[in-house]
Amino acid sequence: MKDIVALCKRRGFIFPASDIYGGINGFWDYGPLGTELKNNIRDLWWKSMVLTPPLGPDGEPVQIVGLDSAIIQNPKCWEASGHVGGFNDPMVDCKESKKRYRADHVTVLLPKNQDGFWLAFDKDAEEDDINQRLKKLAKGRPQSDYDVKKLDKIPFSDFSKIIGPDAKEPGTLTEPRQFNMMFYTFIGAMGGEENKAYLRPETCAGIFLNFKNVLDSSRVKVPFGIAQIGKAFRNEVTPRNFIFRSREFEQMELEWFCEKEEAPKWFEFWVEQRKKWWDSVGIDLKKCHFLDVPKEDLAHYSDRTIDIEYQFPFSAPEYDELEGIAHRGNFDLTQHQTFSGTKLEYMDPTDNTRRFLPDVIEPSCGLTRAVLAVLSEAYTLDETRPSGVYLNFPPAVAPKKAAILPLTAKEEHVPIAQKLYMELREDYAVDLDIKQNIGKRYARQDEIGTPYCFTVDNDTVSDQTVTVRDRNTMAQERIGLDHVADFLRGKMHKKS
Amino acid sequence: MKDIVALCKRRGFIFPASDIYGGINGFWDYGPLGTELKNNIRDLWWKSMVLTPPLGPDGEPVQIVGLDSAIIQNPKCWEASGHVGGFNDPMVDCKESKKRYRADHVTVLLPKNQDGFWLAFDKDAEEDDINQRLKKLAKGRPQSDYDVKKLDKIPFSDFSKIIGPDAKEPGTLTEPRQFNMMFYTFIGAMGGEENKAYLRPETCAGIFLNFKNVLDSSRVKVPFGIAQIGKAFRNEVTPRNFIFRSREFEQMELEWFCEKEEAPKWFEFWVEQRKKWWDSVGIDLKKCHFLDVPKEDLAHYSDRTIDIEYQFPFSAPEYDELEGIAHRGNFDLTQHQTFSGTKLEYMDPTDNTRRFLPDVIEPSCGLTRAVLAVLSEAYTLDETRPSGVYLNFPPAVAPKKAAILPLTAKEEHVPIAQKLYMELREDYAVDLDIKQNIGKRYARQDEIGTPYCFTVDNDTVSDQTVTVRDRNTMAQERIGLDHVADFLRGKMHKKS
Repeated sequence: MKDIVALCKRRGFIFPASDIYGGINGFWDYGPLGTELKNNIRDLWWKSMVLTPPLGPDGEPVQIVGLDSAIIQNPKCWEASGHVGGFNDPMVDCKESKKRYRADHVTVLLPKNQDGFWLAFDKDAEEDDINQRLKKLAKGRPQSDYDVKKLDKIPFSDFSKIIGPDAKEPGTLTEPRQFNMMFYTFIGAMGGEENKAYLRPETCAGIFLNFKNVLDSSRVKVPFGIAQIGKAFRNEVTPRNFIFRSREFEQMELEWFCEKEEAPKWFEFWVEQRKKWWDSVGIDLKKCHFLDVPKEDLAHYSDRTIDIEYQFPFSAPEYDELEGIAHRGNFDLTQHQTFSGTKLEYMDPTDNTRRFLPDVIEPSCGLTRAVLAVLSEAYTLDETRPSGVYLNFPPAVAPKKAAILPLTAKEEHVPIAQKLYMELREDYAVDLDIKQNIGKRYARQDEIGTPYCFTVDNDTVSDQTVTVRDRNTMAQERIGLDHVADFLRGKMHKKS
Repeated sequence: MKDIVALCKRRGFIFPASDIYGGINGFWDYGPLGTELKNNIRDLWWKSMVLTPPLGPDGEPVQIVGLDSAIIQNPKCWEASGHVGGFNDPMVDCKESKKRYRADHVTVLLPKNQDGFWLAFDKDAEEDDINQRLKKLAKGRPQSDYDVKKLDKIPFSDFSKIIGPDAKEPGTLTEPRQFNMMFYTFIGAMGGEENKAYLRPETCAGIFLNFKNVLDSSRVKVPFGIAQIGKAFRNEVTPRNFIFRSREFEQMELEWFCEKEEAPKWFEFWVEQRKKWWDSVGIDLKKCHFLDVPKEDLAHYSDRTIDIEYQFPFSAPEYDELEGIAHRGNFDLTQHQTFSGTKLEYMDPTDNTRRFLPDVIEPSCGLTRAVLAVLSEAYTLDETRPSGVYLNFPPAVAPKKAAILPLTAKEEHVPIAQKLYMELREDYAVDLDIKQNIGKRYARQDEIGTPYCFTVDNDTVSDQTVTVRDRNTMAQERIGLDHVADFLRGKMHKKS
C-alpha cells in the first residue's frame, strides 16, 4: 500500500491536499494523471448508465437519465432521510494516547481462559504489530489463546479490562458517544441554528428530491433509473487507508424505480450488470467477495443488500466495501413525501386510478474508491524491467492511451512524431515525449500505465512504419504509420 | 428571462434545489438535459485546454496538465490567498422592508437640482419598475432629472435622504458592513475555531497549492499551464438572476505560468484563445463586451485584466461578467511560499543558478455561467412553429445530437428505428422517441435543441432511406440509412 501511495505522489496521480501546508487529514488532490484516470472511470460509469444503458430482460435498452444536484440542499431533506437523527458513528476516546477511534473499527482480543487483560487493535492492524504488542503486553501469549470481538459489541462495564490500541494501561477508553458525520455550515450572514445547512453525505438524496421534477419533465416510465455522479462529504472520526475513507469523496449512484413485485428480478439484474462493469474497468472478480448482507444487519427498510467487496492492499487477505446494491423498498420516497407534504406518487399509465410509490434498487459505489481499486489491481511488480513496476490498466481506463517517442531528438524523427501526435490527439489522450534515452522513457510510461508506445526511428523515415511496444509483454512489432489510429481503436475495448 | 427559467424547468434542464421543500435560495439542480448540456460544455473546455491544447506562437501545442483538488483545504491557504481577511461584500439592511442588499448592487437616483428624496433601486431593475416607483414616490418626475450613483460610493451621512429599493420612507438603510463570503465548517468532532475550515470560494487556489507537486511529478517546463474544473461556494448576500449568481457553482480555470517578460504576450494569446472558445460553443461575440479593466479598479497585484462580458437577458442592453482574464503577477505563489514556508521557485533548466517564481495569466470562467449564456444565446422565438421556440445549440453542445423517430408505432417502422438507435448511441447522445404524433415529437425536440431528427417511414422500408429534419430551417431531406452516422459526424464540428 505504501508503495502505491508513493508511486501516486511521484508520478502525479494523487497528492495529499494542502501538501505544502502539512496537509489536512482526510482530503486528497488528484494530480494530472489521477484526474485523467478518475475522469475515465467516471465517464465509463456514465456511459454504462446514461449514454448506453444496458439491455433489459426484454432485449430493449432500459431507461436511465442523468442528474446533477447541489451539494447543499434544504436541511429538512436530511431530517426526512434520517441523516440528522441517525447518521452517527460511535466514537471512543483514549485518555492515555489522546487518540480517537470509531468503536466499530476497533477489534478486541479476549483471553479464552478469562485470565489477563483484553487487548484492542485497529481492525486493519498488521499481523506483525499484533504479535509485537502481545509480546510486550501479554508475555508473547499466542493469538490462538484469544477470542475476537468488535469494541462496539462489548458492554462499557467491561472497558476497564481493555488496553486501548495505542495505550499501555487498561481502562483508558471512554464510553462510546454518537457523533453525527455530516459537515454543517450556515447560509446567509446571520449564522444561528435556523440557518444551519449540511454538505450532503451521499448523492442519492438529490435523486429522490428530483423524482417528481424528472417525471414531470421527461418521458420516463416505471421501470426507469436516475443516475448521478458527484462529491459527498463525511466528517469521518478517523479517515484512513489513503483515498479509501476520506472526508471528501465522489460517489456514482443509480436509483432504479420499479414495481414492488419486480424488485427482486431487477435486484439480480443490477448485481449482474455491476459485476460486468467492474470487470470492464479491470477489476479481477476473483478478488471480489459478494456479501449477501444477513437479514439482522440490514437497515429496517431494506429487503436485501449485496456488498461487492474487494481485496484492497490494506485489507488483504480480507475484503472491504467497493459498492453496495440495496433494495431500499420505497422508504426514501415515503419519507420525502411525508416531510415535504408534496405528493410523489407515480401514476400507472395503463390504469390512471392506480398511483403508487415505486420500489428502489440502488447500486451505489465510490468513484474515488474505484480509483483506488483500479490502481491497486493495476499495480504489478516486475523486477525484470528498469521501473521495477508497471500499471496494468485496461486501455479504456489508462490516463494515456499511447506515447509517441522519437527515438532521438534528431531532426528526422521529431517532425514525424509531432505529426502523428497531432493526428492521434483529436481522439485519444496521447503523450509526446521527446527527450531522454528511450529506456528511461519506456520506464516512465510503464510506471504511469500507458499501454502502447509508438517509436519513430530511422526505419520510419525510409518505410513509414513505427515500432509498437506493448506495456505488458514488452514485445515490439512494426506497423505502418497510417495504421496507428486503427490499431489504437481496435485496442480501446479490450481489457488489457 | 422568465421564459428561459420556465423552459428549463419544464424540459428538465434546471430545477430549483430542494424544490419539493420550497427550495433553498441560491442553489440549483441540473436535470437530465441540463446535466448533459453542462457536461458537454465542461468536456469542450477540458478538451480545448488539457487534451488538445492550442498551438503556441512557435506552432507547437502549448503544455497544459489537468488537476482536481479538494474543495476543503488547510485553512492557512485562505489566509495566504487573502480570502480570510478580505473576501468581503458590503452588506446593507433595510429597517423598513427587512431585506438585505449588496451595496455595490444598488443604484441610487439623485435629483440633479438637489430637491427631493434619493431613490434606490436594484442595479438590474426593469425600466417599468423604475418609472412606476418614480410615479408613486416622486410624482412621476422623469429619470432625466436624476444623476445615477452606486450606493457604495455614497457616504453614510447621506443615507438619510435615500428611500431603499423596497421601502417607501427615506433613511431606513443601515451603514454598510463587511461580510465574509466564504462558507465555513468544522473538521472533526470538536468544533471550535481551531477546527474551522472553509469551502473554497474559487478553484484556482488548489492549482497554486499543487504547483510544486506538479513540477516534481510531471515533465512540464515554463511556460506551461494547470487547468481545473470544479465546484466553488460563495455565501452570496443576495443570490440572483437564476444560475448567474448562485451560492454553489462550478468554475473552469487555467493558471498559465510564464516568464515575467513574456506575460504580456501570453495575456494577448489567451484573450484570443478564449474568444475562439466562446465562439465555438455558440456565443455570439457581437453580444460580448471586452472590458479592459481600468488601472484604478485592478487588484494591487494585477497588471492587467480583461473581463469578457455578455449581454445576458437580465442585463441587456448592458453586460455582465462571463470570464475574467487576469495577469496576476506572481502574487499567489509568493503568498503561498511565504505562508507555507515551502520553496516554490522554479529552476530555469537552461541556467540552474537562476530560480524564480513565474508570472501567472489566469483565464477564469464559470461553467454554470457558461450554461446560462449558451442557453440564452440558443433561445430563439419562432411563432411559425408549434413549440413557439427552439434552442439553437451548436451540435457539439446540444444535449441530444439527434432523435430517431419511427413515423408510426407500427411494426415495420419501430425495429428499423431501434436498430439505428443502437448503432448511433455508441458514439452520439441520441434519443429514440416512439409514441405521439410526429408534429408533437418534432416540437419537443425543437424545445430541447436537438439539431437533427431522423424519421423512419414507409419509404425507409422499401428504399433504406430516412428523412433528416434540420432543427433551424425545418427543411427535410432524405439520406441513406447507412449514411446517417457519417452525416452526424460531419455536423459535429459545425457551430449550428
